[in-house]
Amino acid sequence: MESTEITVRSGDRLVTDLTGELARFCAGRGDGLVNVFVPHATAGVALMETGSGSEPDLAGAIDRLLPAEDIYRHRHGSLGHGRDHVLPAFVSPSVSIPVLAGEPTLGTWQSVVLVDSNGDNPNRRVRLSFLEG
Amino acid sequence: MESTEITVRSGDRLVTDLTGELARFCAGRGDGLVNVFVPHATAGVALMETGSGSEPDLAGAIDRLLPAEDIYRHRHGSLGHGRDHVLPAFVSPSVSIPVLAGEPTLGTWQSVVLVDSNGDNPNRRVRLSFLEG
Amino acid sequence: MESTEITVRSGDRLVTDLTGELARFCAGRGDGLVNVFVPHATAGVALMETGSGSEPDLAGAIDRLLPAEDIYRHRHGSLGHGRDHVLPAFVSPSVSIPVLAGEPTLGTWQSVVLVDSNGDNPNRRVRLSFLEG
Repeated sequence: MESTEITVRSGDRLVTDLTGELARFCAGRGDGLVNVFVPHATAGVALMETGSGSEPDLAGAIDRLLPAEDIYRHRHGSLGHGRDHVLPAFVSPSVSIPVLAGEPTLGTWQSVVLVDSNGDNPNRRVRLSFLEG
Repeated sequence: MESTEITVRSGDRLVTDLTGELARFCAGRGDGLVNVFVPHATAGVALMETGSGSEPDLAGAIDRLLPAEDIYRHRHGSLGHGRDHVLPAFVSPSVSIPVLAGEPTLGTWQSVVLVDSNGDNPNRRVRLSFLEG
Repeated sequence: MESTEITVRSGDRLVTDLTGELARFCAGRGDGLVNVFVPHATAGVALMETGSGSEPDLAGAIDRLLPAEDIYRHRHGSLGHGRDHVLPAFVSPSVSIPVLAGEPTLGTWQSVVLVDSNGDNPNRRVRLSFLEG
């Protein structure tokens, strides 16, 4: 298995596109499964369209479903940070994508993105792993 | 890795059962991991019971959590289509299932289903990939 | 692929930590991908912090998002049991984690947990599978 960790600057952005980095990592590797894994407890990975308004739509949905209010037991960090710890149960920090001839088999409108509602941690690590098959 | 793409007619159905196709794909393949991947930005894959009312229950939950209303920035397609683009962040379009002796190790009540709230695209592609182990 | 099924007593607990069992299963296995799979239709697997209040926070979120009320078609089991069948569409029963030198590459604050809102089934099976790479 080829595995590497990259660092991504998410800052205050909820959605950070990782598709380019993933394509570069897979290039030349043949067929297999690529896994995108975030070793953090307050971020997830998703496949979604970018650039057509779905990033603020996801932000709105997360704010409605998991409001950043004073309703959580988890008390570290900023007010409402407890919701950042609930997020990965719904937006998993791990996703696997088939790769054929060194290219992830993403659909035309799919991007791989980091979903990070936690502005307190502006830099995030993302592990890319390729299992040849 | 053995990988193939099938076409599924989901039409207006939210939930389309893929268990039979998955079983046929895995038959005779030995041990490994099978990945079910939907290369679309408005559909997901889930493991759930079918035939006992959970399909309309899931439809109701999605309508409550991600209402198909005029609250999204994404403006293509039908009214409320923006929610179809948010869905895959919560219902991932990728799931992996262990396979032993050519059979997915699904529980008695588990089916693999396509979750597709987007009636505008009645035909969907689903990629099945088997990584021997 | 090395694959084994363990039994976990979840009882009435929503969140049961599996990190120790996973570490023991991976020890000595080298590099690869480990898959944690729950062959049940009313439970999921998540990566989250434990011991700092996020377990009751997740319980609260699930109760708000998927209330255990009389709103489901699925009529088996206790009142509100229908929501247990909707849960795995959002909290997938399958997660894969990269393993390096026999150790899952979990982040400092990440634990692998069973998420089981169904108190009617106090004992759960969990399949651990290691695909060497």
